[in-house]
Amino acid sequence: MMQSTGRTPVAILGATGLVGQRLISLLSRHPFFEVAELAASSRSAGKPYGEAVNWQMAEELPAALAKLPIHPCDPSHCRSGLVFSALDRSVALEIEQAFAQAGRAVVTNAAPWRMEADLPLIVPEINADHLDLIERQRKQRGWPGFIVTNPNCSTIGLSLAIAPIQIAAGVDQLIVTTLQAASGAGYPGVPTLDLLDNVVPYIPGEEEKIETETKKIFGSLIGEQVEAATFLAAAQVHRVPVVDGHLMSISVKTRQPLDPLEAIDRLRSFRAPREVAELPSAPVPPILVRGEEDRPQPRLDRGAGNGMAVSLGRVRSCPILGLRMEALSHNTIRGAAGGTLLIAELLHSRSLLP
Amino acid sequence: MMQSTGRTPVAILGATGLVGQRLISLLSRHPFFEVAELAASSRSAGKPYGEAVNWQMAEELPAALAKLPIHPCDPSHCRSGLVFSALDRSVALEIEQAFAQAGRAVVTNAAPWRMEADLPLIVPEINADHLDLIERQRKQRGWPGFIVTNPNCSTIGLSLAIAPIQIAAGVDQLIVTTLQAASGAGYPGVPTLDLLDNVVPYIPGEEEKIETETKKIFGSLIGEQVEAATFLAAAQVHRVPVVDGHLMSISVKTRQPLDPLEAIDRLRSFRAPREVAELPSAPVPPILVRGEEDRPQPRLDRGAGNGMAVSLGRVRSCPILGLRMEALSHNTIRGAAGGTLLIAELLHSRSLLP
Amino acid sequence: MMQSTGRTPVAILGATGLVGQRLISLLSRHPFFEVAELAASSRSAGKPYGEAVNWQMAEELPAALAKLPIHPCDPSHCRSGLVFSALDRSVALEIEQAFAQAGRAVVTNAAPWRMEADLPLIVPEINADHLDLIERQRKQRGWPGFIVTNPNCSTIGLSLAIAPIQIAAGVDQLIVTTLQAASGAGYPGVPTLDLLDNVVPYIPGEEEKIETETKKIFGSLIGEQVEAATFLAAAQVHRVPVVDGHLMSISVKTRQPLDPLEAIDRLRSFRAPREVAELPSAPVPPILVRGEEDRPQPRLDRGAGNGMAVSLGRVRSCPILGLRMEALSHNTIRGAAGGTLLIAELLHSRSLLP
Amino acid sequence: MMQSTGRTPVAILGATGLVGQRLISLLSRHPFFEVAELAASSRSAGKPYGEAVNWQMAEELPAALAKLPIHPCDPSHCRSGLVFSALDRSVALEIEQAFAQAGRAVVTNAAPWRMEADLPLIVPEINADHLDLIERQRKQRGWPGFIVTNPNCSTIGLSLAIAPIQIAAGVDQLIVTTLQAASGAGYPGVPTLDLLDNVVPYIPGEEEKIETETKKIFGSLIGEQVEAATFLAAAQVHRVPVVDGHLMSISVKTRQPLDPLEAIDRLRSFRAPREVAELPSAPVPPILVRGEEDRPQPRLDRGAGNGMAVSLGRVRSCPILGLRMEALSHNTIRGAAGGTLLIAELLHSRSLLP
Repeated sequence: MMQSTGRTPVAILGATGLVGQRLISLLSRHPFFEVAELAASSRSAGKPYGEAVNWQMAEELPAALAKLPIHPCDPSHCRSGLVFSALDRSVALEIEQAFAQAGRAVVTNAAPWRMEADLPLIVPEINADHLDLIERQRKQRGWPGFIVTNPNCSTIGLSLAIAPIQIAAGVDQLIVTTLQAASGAGYPGVPTLDLLDNVVPYIPGEEEKIETETKKIFGSLIGEQVEAATFLAAAQVHRVPVVDGHLMSISVKTRQPLDPLEAIDRLRSFRAPREVAELPSAPVPPILVRGEEDRPQPRLDRGAGNGMAVSLGRVRSCPILGLRMEALSHNTIRGAAGGTLLIAELLHSRSLLP
Repeated sequence: MMQSTGRTPVAILGATGLVGQRLISLLSRHPFFEVAELAASSRSAGKPYGEAVNWQMAEELPAALAKLPIHPCDPSHCRSGLVFSALDRSVALEIEQAFAQAGRAVVTNAAPWRMEADLPLIVPEINADHLDLIERQRKQRGWPGFIVTNPNCSTIGLSLAIAPIQIAAGVDQLIVTTLQAASGAGYPGVPTLDLLDNVVPYIPGEEEKIETETKKIFGSLIGEQVEAATFLAAAQVHRVPVVDGHLMSISVKTRQPLDPLEAIDRLRSFRAPREVAELPSAPVPPILVRGEEDRPQPRLDRGAGNGMAVSLGRVRSCPILGLRMEALSHNTIRGAAGGTLLIAELLHSRSLLP
Repeated sequence: MMQSTGRTPVAILGATGLVGQRLISLLSRHPFFEVAELAASSRSAGKPYGEAVNWQMAEELPAALAKLPIHPCDPSHCRSGLVFSALDRSVALEIEQAFAQAGRAVVTNAAPWRMEADLPLIVPEINADHLDLIERQRKQRGWPGFIVTNPNCSTIGLSLAIAPIQIAAGVDQLIVTTLQAASGAGYPGVPTLDLLDNVVPYIPGEEEKIETETKKIFGSLIGEQVEAATFLAAAQVHRVPVVDGHLMSISVKTRQPLDPLEAIDRLRSFRAPREVAELPSAPVPPILVRGEEDRPQPRLDRGAGNGMAVSLGRVRSCPILGLRMEALSHNTIRGAAGGTLLIAELLHSRSLLP
Repeated sequence: MMQSTGRTPVAILGATGLVGQRLISLLSRHPFFEVAELAASSRSAGKPYGEAVNWQMAEELPAALAKLPIHPCDPSHCRSGLVFSALDRSVALEIEQAFAQAGRAVVTNAAPWRMEADLPLIVPEINADHLDLIERQRKQRGWPGFIVTNPNCSTIGLSLAIAPIQIAAGVDQLIVTTLQAASGAGYPGVPTLDLLDNVVPYIPGEEEKIETETKKIFGSLIGEQVEAATFLAAAQVHRVPVVDGHLMSISVKTRQPLDPLEAIDRLRSFRAPREVAELPSAPVPPILVRGEEDRPQPRLDRGAGNGMAVSLGRVRSCPILGLRMEALSHNTIRGAAGGTLLIAELLHSRSLLP
């Protein structure tokens, strides 16, 4: 453990991957949290972090962290009460459960738990109330700790982009075509030969995640149950030669009429609930609506709101579904590490951390 | 003029641009036609072609053509009866009209004439019958020659992809999101800084072209009038870092039910009318339906059918419109030079050339 | 003019280009300077800056600057005593001379003046003493103001990389092969079709600049004359598909023996003179020597020292010239806007500004 | 085995990799050889080739080959007398030796055997005489078959580029800086995140291969011994975002004076010995010297001579070593599959095949 500074010590599971690195980068000067423990697969365990990681962030790896020894992903080796998981889906279920059983609060970016009925799937600006599932989860599973999940990288940007429309007029049908960045597949991820002078119109499992997670996020918490939203969603995904930033082409049919100018107004004025807006990583505003006809663009707009805001553009009428727009969000910040961090900040401010 | 070989001599207007180069490349060993005259803007006129052009094709520029002097774009300087136009839209109207008035058959890739009621807009596999408009055009305008137009590069691939569906079940609604190659903007075209680690969600005028031209192509020739198809079409376009090959994500609602397996069957068995299928540049079959879940991809599939076929993949049901798929076609071959050439071959085989 | 804040008001000529934008970005919170006036070509003059510019920086354009009206590039329209010039070479000579004649201090990034005998060509860490040429310049040309020049973007990184070697052992022969980023050509700059799945082994005038400017920078100021360094330099340049960051492969023959370990030691311990090291934009240290065998890399290392440091790697012996290494520097920060700014800071700290 | 056609049946080891695929593509209509057997790792063995391979070539996989079952890499499972090896270096030594022991002629692209004293390392245009080592090899090792090796992908292009200079004036010193394509690392090979908006200044083992193999290729066969050439060679390598085509920046010091115009003349008039020039895959001429100042470029020039020729440009004097130039060759054709094939054709025409 590093020396205390009054901040809450946290552990990062899967610390050597891209999302783990981004978490370390985002946590390097955080007002609430301090990286105390880094854990990774047995291949890395025991080495100093700086030796085990292939550091890819633009900022230098903080020297103190470079020296931190890597722990195994096992609660008996980590003392932190708050645990960020950037684990690979193949091992996430088992390890995260062990941490919850050991009384830790786990905020995970991994996919496997997301659609479990008693696990909250949270975009803080939209469904902070779903955190009430934690109680049911603990009761039902007999865990002293708990697990909260961060949605898929595309799902988060999409959900934020349509949240004001859902509130204003109700989403009825949703067609989304994505152009997703290479970093979404982690490192090594997609081979150069697949994305040089090329585009791949497929990402395994991605379309299902977008179609199902969105409905859970916009679901209503009734009693101890989230009743999924009932709109229809259809996703078609592509991997494009972009480092960071998922772009989405969105067409929406609303239940109530909503003309594009009104939609722009609703999108621009959208704000998170105060308890969320005041969190250190919350972007204010969460949505930027750009007026240029050729924006948003990944390289120019992914950094908006420190990578936590969603940039929209080309909001206009669609002759078929009624409304269409382009949305962009930073997939490894808002869509992964930053989203996870914002959830943890919310847990902290609600005093839900051990 | 080059020496005769029994083949029909042809002129190319706008010969130094990317589409002009591609035409020269495709015509280099053509059974019907022989490049006899090259014309370009006054900046190039007078120079040998090899000096004026920034040759970008993979094949070497034929030595005989490198020496051809560039003519001005003026019918008094070109004797060929068949004229391919790859002119920029800003000058196409005036120059092409002058050639038609001078009795030449003009097949143009330029946009301005396409939606004129008396000008055929042709995808030979789909609406060869629209060539009957030529007679009306000549009568109405008093031209001894005529102009036939080749659709927009995205429109051609889209039209071929949905033609069998239109025949089988009637297209009612059509949502298309494109990922278009850099070559579609010509040379110099899109700056590197716009497409390196980036995507641009806009191409001026492109969405309107896709939405309107498609309806004219599928229109019915009634008397001397094309009555446009009545489906609804919505296009959202993107420029992506790909050299050649426009990829399109297509969702279709049909008038009659059409399940995906039946659709695949119709797409695979689609054939052009015999008079078209026998033309030298006609791809047989015009449509390839791939079974891999991650195809078509621009770099791997744009060369299908010598760049003249459309590759489809991921044909499956859409929870909203009913049917969706990915389509790819080579934008400077099928979508421009090759499409133009196929029209000219059709005119030749119908003995419509002067 | 914007409201005063006690900081020195500055004007930027050529404010809409990439280097101008970068200057604005670097000056947005500068301790010495404040952007007061923006000037550009007559095409933009009169418009608010936010309308005229195609803003490409990752940070948002400050709102106050977006509203600044663009002035013509004429000293009668600009009152600032310190003028940064990011003008195109075709107009730089005449305009910059007019500003110097009007008593302004011009720090220019443009090429034309660089090799003039009475104009200092400055890399502050290396040859701050060459600023003494200003006096000769004023006397000789009768200018109340003066012009100081910033070297070519590749030259700066190269000069910093070899400075400690020159000091330690004397450079005798220098072969450099560059891999330069697209942003070095400005915007629109290099067409996508030239750099997608491609490399261009040529940049007009670049090799000559590298070969000659380097010798002037390392020249000795003797009396009022810079006697150019006498080493031999050979440059071969390439444009590669990278947004920012020029990579250089350098082989050096020294006059005195210098083994690689000693060289690494000298490179690592190199420091600017104190008056330079204390400037706000000076990187400390100016040179980072990386130990990984596959670094420096443009995307990972261009941000070192806020884009002002040079990253070296693979410092090892060369069987022919003796020493070789890879060097990387950010071409629009250290190699252009940031380099210019560092010179201005030096002029400010020496009280040489009007 | 496929049905006989009078052509020599051949086996390909490592048939599923990029080089194996390229070999299949090049052999699809070969006058001497016919692909009869495909072998790969045990993971693929037993499957039809079409199922096991991730086919990346622009041409469709021939249907007959798609059905060929994959054999294990074991001489007891392959009957062909001529065996092309595109095996990974980790397994090449053992497997290739087994084939040679089983009486087969193995032409390999793998690195491990190349520098063995009794194994010929062949660029047919340069050192066909080194094939005489085969006899020594068989005698010494007691193999009824033999192994001939194809050089490293960069080495081949470099060797061809300097061969006429070596003949005309003797190479004394050679500095080469490479910009190598992604395909050189095979598939999956280099991650997208390493080459998008980036360059990597390192490829494991590559510099040593270039420096040592070149000297063996230009070595003199004296008795049964190749005495390596004695020039000094220094290589510095980079991986760049290019699909195919290695570009090299070359500086040469010759033993006898050779001015650039004379060098261009020698390069242009260079021809292979007649027995090589008449082989089906031999490019005539082997070297193209381009006059444009910005060529060769990978995308435009890699296809020269069907990917078998080397394109040179910017041949000019170097102020330090005397002569410099840019060279480009297709790394998976000339540098791998095509080079291997040309060696096999030479063995065939010399009746050295079993």
